Amino acid sequence: MHKDLIAKLADTESLKTIWNRQKEGFAMPSISKLTEIVELSRAILFPGYFGDAGVNHLNLPYHIGINIEHLSELLIKQIEAVLNLTNENNSTENKQKAKEITFHFLNEFPLLREILATDVIAAYNGDPAAKSYGEVIFCYPAIRAIINYRIAHTLFKLNVPLIPRIITEMAHSETGIDIHPGATIGRYFTIDHGTGVVIGETAIIGEHVQLYQGVTLGSRSFPLDENGNPIKGQLRHPIIEDNVIVYSNASILGRVTIGKGSIIGGNIWIEHDVPAGSIITQKTQAKK
Amino acid sequence: MHKDLIAKLADTESLKTIWNRQKEGFAMPSISKLTEIVELSRAILFPGYFGDAGVNHLNLPYHIGINIEHLSELLIKQIEAVLNLTNENNSTENKQKAKEITFHFLNEFPLLREILATDVIAAYNGDPAAKSYGEVIFCYPAIRAIINYRIAHTLFKLNVPLIPRIITEMAHSETGIDIHPGATIGRYFTIDHGTGVVIGETAIIGEHVQLYQGVTLGSRSFPLDENGNPIKGQLRHPIIEDNVIVYSNASILGRVTIGKGSIIGGNIWIEHDVPAGSIITQKTQAKK
Amino acid sequence: MHKDLIAKLADTESLKTIWNRQKEGFAMPSISKLTEIVELSRAILFPGYFGDAGVNHLNLPYHIGINIEHLSELLIKQIEAVLNLTNENNSTENKQKAKEITFHFLNEFPLLREILATDVIAAYNGDPAAKSYGEVIFCYPAIRAIINYRIAHTLFKLNVPLIPRIITEMAHSETGIDIHPGATIGRYFTIDHGTGVVIGETAIIGEHVQLYQGVTLGSRSFPLDENGNPIKGQLRHPIIEDNVIVYSNASILGRVTIGKGSIIGGNIWIEHDVPAGSIITQKTQAKK
Amino acid sequence: MHKDLIAKLADTESLKTIWNRQKEGFAMPSISKLTEIVELSRAILFPGYFGDAGVNHLNLPYHIGINIEHLSELLIKQIEAVLNLTNENNSTENKQKAKEITFHFLNEFPLLREILATDVIAAYNGDPAAKSYGEVIFCYPAIRAIINYRIAHTLFKLNVPLIPRIITEMAHSETGIDIHPGATIGRYFTIDHGTGVVIGETAIIGEHVQLYQGVTLGSRSFPLDENGNPIKGQLRHPIIEDNVIVYSNASILGRVTIGKGSIIGGNIWIEHDVPAGSIITQKTQAKK
Amino acid sequence: MHKDLIAKLADTESLKTIWNRQKEGFAMPSISKLTEIVELSRAILFPGYFGDAGVNHLNLPYHIGINIEHLSELLIKQIEAVLNLTNENNSTENKQKAKEITFHFLNEFPLLREILATDVIAAYNGDPAAKSYGEVIFCYPAIRAIINYRIAHTLFKLNVPLIPRIITEMAHSETGIDIHPGATIGRYFTIDHGTGVVIGETAIIGEHVQLYQGVTLGSRSFPLDENGNPIKGQLRHPIIEDNVIVYSNASILGRVTIGKGSIIGGNIWIEHDVPAGSIITQKTQAKK
Amino acid sequence: MHKDLIAKLADTESLKTIWNRQKEGFAMPSISKLTEIVELSRAILFPGYFGDAGVNHLNLPYHIGINIEHLSELLIKQIEAVLNLTNENNSTENKQKAKEITFHFLNEFPLLREILATDVIAAYNGDPAAKSYGEVIFCYPAIRAIINYRIAHTLFKLNVPLIPRIITEMAHSETGIDIHPGATIGRYFTIDHGTGVVIGETAIIGEHVQLYQGVTLGSRSFPLDENGNPIKGQLRHPIIEDNVIVYSNASILGRVTIGKGSIIGGNIWIEHDVPAGSIITQKTQAKK
Repeated sequence: MHKDLIAKLADTESLKTIWNRQKEGFAMPSISKLTEIVELSRAILFPGYFGDAGVNHLNLPYHIGINIEHLSELLIKQIEAVLNLTNENNSTENKQKAKEITFHFLNEFPLLREILATDVIAAYNGDPAAKSYGEVIFCYPAIRAIINYRIAHTLFKLNVPLIPRIITEMAHSETGIDIHPGATIGRYFTIDHGTGVVIGETAIIGEHVQLYQGVTLGSRSFPLDENGNPIKGQLRHPIIEDNVIVYSNASILGRVTIGKGSIIGGNIWIEHDVPAGSIITQKTQAKK
Repeated sequence: MHKDLIAKLADTESLKTIWNRQKEGFAMPSISKLTEIVELSRAILFPGYFGDAGVNHLNLPYHIGINIEHLSELLIKQIEAVLNLTNENNSTENKQKAKEITFHFLNEFPLLREILATDVIAAYNGDPAAKSYGEVIFCYPAIRAIINYRIAHTLFKLNVPLIPRIITEMAHSETGIDIHPGATIGRYFTIDHGTGVVIGETAIIGEHVQLYQGVTLGSRSFPLDENGNPIKGQLRHPIIEDNVIVYSNASILGRVTIGKGSIIGGNIWIEHDVPAGSIITQKTQAKK
Repeated sequence: MHKDLIAKLADTESLKTIWNRQKEGFAMPSISKLTEIVELSRAILFPGYFGDAGVNHLNLPYHIGINIEHLSELLIKQIEAVLNLTNENNSTENKQKAKEITFHFLNEFPLLREILATDVIAAYNGDPAAKSYGEVIFCYPAIRAIINYRIAHTLFKLNVPLIPRIITEMAHSETGIDIHPGATIGRYFTIDHGTGVVIGETAIIGEHVQLYQGVTLGSRSFPLDENGNPIKGQLRHPIIEDNVIVYSNASILGRVTIGKGSIIGGNIWIEHDVPAGSIITQKTQAKK
Repeated sequence: MHKDLIAKLADTESLKTIWNRQKEGFAMPSISKLTEIVELSRAILFPGYFGDAGVNHLNLPYHIGINIEHLSELLIKQIEAVLNLTNENNSTENKQKAKEITFHFLNEFPLLREILATDVIAAYNGDPAAKSYGEVIFCYPAIRAIINYRIAHTLFKLNVPLIPRIITEMAHSETGIDIHPGATIGRYFTIDHGTGVVIGETAIIGEHVQLYQGVTLGSRSFPLDENGNPIKGQLRHPIIEDNVIVYSNASILGRVTIGKGSIIGGNIWIEHDVPAGSIITQKTQAKK
Repeated sequence: MHKDLIAKLADTESLKTIWNRQKEGFAMPSISKLTEIVELSRAILFPGYFGDAGVNHLNLPYHIGINIEHLSELLIKQIEAVLNLTNENNSTENKQKAKEITFHFLNEFPLLREILATDVIAAYNGDPAAKSYGEVIFCYPAIRAIINYRIAHTLFKLNVPLIPRIITEMAHSETGIDIHPGATIGRYFTIDHGTGVVIGETAIIGEHVQLYQGVTLGSRSFPLDENGNPIKGQLRHPIIEDNVIVYSNASILGRVTIGKGSIIGGNIWIEHDVPAGSIITQKTQAKK
Repeated sequence: MHKDLIAKLADTESLKTIWNRQKEGFAMPSISKLTEIVELSRAILFPGYFGDAGVNHLNLPYHIGINIEHLSELLIKQIEAVLNLTNENNSTENKQKAKEITFHFLNEFPLLREILATDVIAAYNGDPAAKSYGEVIFCYPAIRAIINYRIAHTLFKLNVPLIPRIITEMAHSETGIDIHPGATIGRYFTIDHGTGVVIGETAIIGEHVQLYQGVTLGSRSFPLDENGNPIKGQLRHPIIEDNVIVYSNASILGRVTIGKGSIIGGNIWIEHDVPAGSIITQKTQAKK
């Protein structure tokens, strides 16, 4: 019926830009498995809020045990897959490496839970509408985005390719908050409402920082290479020091530093350093 | 394999910040059941557009009957669960209360359908690209966000904890429109495109109001209590009177009033009252 | 139990605004089938990245064959449904028309793949954080939004009602990027981060154009008809010429032209023509 | 990889025995839809026992309404499919005929419920282990087999091809009871245990008949046609008159009549008429 | 469309035989939950063969813990449901009773596993085609039927109504083996092939007994009450002593005793006591 | 809650009979994958009757291609799993062997389709109630049982452990027909009704043989080894020569030969050779 069309679309010539034939045998990571990995991580970090609702202090060990084991098994396979896809080692070496990475990753969970608890406290304290820690964990999109970021960042530091970005993009799609897994973010971090927030790869954020919806911590312009393409890997995103608040839709661009305790007003566009304790706001113009 | 790790993560000490042991026996509401509740509500309010596609005027009574009954059953259980989680009554009292709330809630549906029809008309009239009411109901994210808001607001007024917020966050995730269930919004309300819109807990919006994407109706700054935390429950969001248009990415903050018939231009930042009939816009600066 | 309530909600009088009784017998298109249609299209256009992960150059013809056939079958039915819903032809004529449209649509796929490959290259070149084409296709929300737009636009040009808009709204919900299927967009198009981007129905975008999150290419104000409602079908969105960059949260409104090679800074609000090669940015005001 | 093999298996020559090319465009009926049809029929006939457990006398009309409507819609399509597959009418005629058959079928449901209630009473009275009618309806495989048979027989009498047999084979697989849809069976019919029971196409069974597991009401030998194949459509199975009991593993073969009130013992092999009131049993031989 | 028909089928008068209006508020047990209960029981009793395949001696405690807890929760609800349906206690008493029964039931699991291991050994020893214990547990229908029976019998002895019968009927449908939950069966029990086996409510089977397909341990005839209906609760099925073998399709009927070590040949019909050590077989008659 | 119980059930001592600790790391084959394997095989062998209903002669190559490829992938993994579980080779050798076996297996498919077509013809010719080849393939349980047997037998001859038995047990559960995968069965084989049929491991069946429900081709008694257990691997089941008919519930036991063209009557018990052309039937005894 569609014989010619099928032949055209099955012609690998038409795929040469986007296919890497050397790596043809290796599959992309599985989105559904990574979704499961995120859900298991959430269930381990915040038992009772995510995952099985019937957790109590008596059966907690069994739930944690099963979830850790299941998570470990799934993650090893996914990391192995991306290593095979992106490096030159043989598959036995990659399997071994995947096991080691997973082991290190899981051992960060007690610390991750501790840090995430500070984010919950920050969200609760920063929002007069919040009624309880439980509501914050259970309902606030920022918490989901930050959990995904902290998981992804842990994998990013362990040099796992591709997967960290997929995990933060899952949160991006779910919450409209786009945090690059490479960013460095301190404790007691919170984002109010969150839709449209962008935090770039090399951004550094201190402790007790609060962002509002639409805030961009982006790059300004990139040095180009000889072909006119941006040079990869430059430090090009802002440093936000402790106790800074950035209101909605403000943009802070380039490797600038916003000093401790500053307040950046909404809709502001900043491309330069700001000293500690500054308050920067926009003036409105009324016509007629 | 992970024996020590599991023991650490199962140590309830590490959960003391986020767990409320008094309420340990009681489960969080079920996200999947609440999703079903929203889908049933949409199917009852807009039969043929949501839910079973084969509805016609002859079989409508059977569809409405089954859906109302199913919705009632699911909602009683979810309300009972959140009451057990958040108040001190015994579970028999809470079950009784859950039944009464559900009864009152369902009886608002004829009115909800009537009000939502005005929102559909407003969306159709406000968008030159809209081809029919059906397209608006079926495709426009704003309609989904407003349905969820109007359902959630009805439950909010009946003092249901937690659930209203979960329902508006579902729409937030689906559409990027974040309306707090506590906000008060009049008839013929519409939002164009919608991503990034934020409407705060104590905002009051009149009739025939139209918002564009990225608009914030937020709070400015909060009076702090003796511990430096925001005082909860203050009136801190704007009042938007009838027939106001607010263009994209404008922010209106604090308990200010935007007078009848005003037009607020895009990217504008407003923290003061605006008299009726005002037109407020931004001037652009061209460099080079 | 709810006898009176059910009777009230089943009273078709209460639905008269939103129901079109002439068309009662015809069902709305199926969201789940259209979701499948989008997934099949993605799998055909980018085999190995979307759809079955095990594709290789040997089995590609079988995968393409099955997917084309399945897509064809599903799409004919959905187009037939919307034609029955929106025009006056009899159902035999509509079935025939649906087959023809689907045939033409599928024959655009080789070209669509070619164009989408240029978008992938643009995204890779435009983002210093991008590691490979594969990562871009697999992880970047902009690619998903652009695929959906290019599919929907093809159907839009074939005069398919309703479905193009549903397909772009799916991407809107998934990515926060809202591109009207009527917009015209050239090759090498990319959007960074993307949340909050709006591109209107009559916008025209050249080649090598790059947008950032929160950019609006919208309309300014509409000529009203005698009833005070906007006149439908006017050319009311901007023309963006080749090689233009528009930074985050900028708004360009009305039928204005942004000349070749211009750079529009973030948060800028533009309602007038901009000559080729312009650089337009905002000044920041620092208080204290 | 498997290129030659695929070519061989895709060679339609190898399918010429089993494919009917004239009818190639028409699909076989859908097993999953027919399964749904049986479940809906059971739910309509025995509400509360099959289908939604929450049925009560107040909401019963809504449940029956939805289920009848859904059943009607599904069945019309399946009957249409088998008519297209097996007769020479055009598809408009077959659609019309499918609607008429479905209408007649549904109107038999009040009578079917009445008859099936007599079968429940018979099963309860015939089994000292039965505790209540509810247990019989809910647990006894014979009831499921008899429901499927009575539904299938109703369709068989309306000259629906293929579907009746599929429906009785579903019960055969579920219960081990194989009743041909062409058989004629009176009220108060019951089968104890049931595995291995076979009732042939032209068997006639009176009222108040009870069978045990492994009973065959079969044919003896078939007159052959000139090619040595059995002649189709002969009356070749037994007539069992009222109030007969047939014990386990007995076989009654050929167009013989078992007279009123007879008792046929287990493991008996009968190929001749038996007068009313007979008691026929086997003698055991003990060796050593 | 089907208004009259729906009214007729929704007339509760037509349901009076089969509905018990006193108990209308109470739902039948859930087949899908009971299926889950059986699967969890199998996974606890034979970890690694049923349920999660990845069980090993290190993670076994977590798997057992989760499964026991989940099973306990599900079973309490199902037992509570059947108690409400069948007795006159109030629902608080029934909930308490359901908890106690479940507690006793679970505490039988160590013993059940021990006994079932003897059945596995017997099946392995009794079948020359069996290659390993694992194959027997994993593939042999008899093992599934016996697991269900031993679970159901444990609940039967705890006076749980309805559920035991549902559980053995599940195995009946799956394997064609119909064992009444009231039967008493000793260790090292095995059934070869199994289809068509029937074991009645009051049967007593010793240790090391082996049955073949089609064997009936049934009742002969029932004393009738004054209404001509069978009297319930009589001892009416055989006693099979230790080390007996019964070959295929043999029927042993009534409260007779088959003495230790006897061998009953295939197709034999027995209605009297058989002394220990007997060998009973059928003679074949050859015609022509 | 159940701490002691869990400890008892997690004590591997209680599992020592049934667990093989040497092989603990290796999982049992996956029932759900094997189910998929059977469904794919049926779809390849009888396209249009099993699997996707929309197959026609134009798209057949794509369907066969995808299904062969998918089947190959699934089967290699399952065979690898059972080899790891049952032999001493390292996993690389087993993977290689699994690939070879799968390759040989798939290359039998053209022949399997050819043979199965003869079985369909035999079933159609042997049953006066059969209306078409399509009805036979689509509805007759015997065809499903024979497909599974022929697939399983092919794997059995390739020395695949465990899987062949699982595949025939699936058909046993679905149809009540229990054919050991080791049996040898010629062309034009058919079984009428089928429930209760048993065909043993070493049985040999010629061409044009027809069996009825409840027929056993079993073993008589086994030579015991020094421990009193049956010796495995003996030739212990009958040889049925060409053109034999065996009627319902007949049992033929031991390594006896039923000569060409014989007819064995129902309920007959045979433990000796029968010369060609014999007709063997049972005499009925009438009491009173």
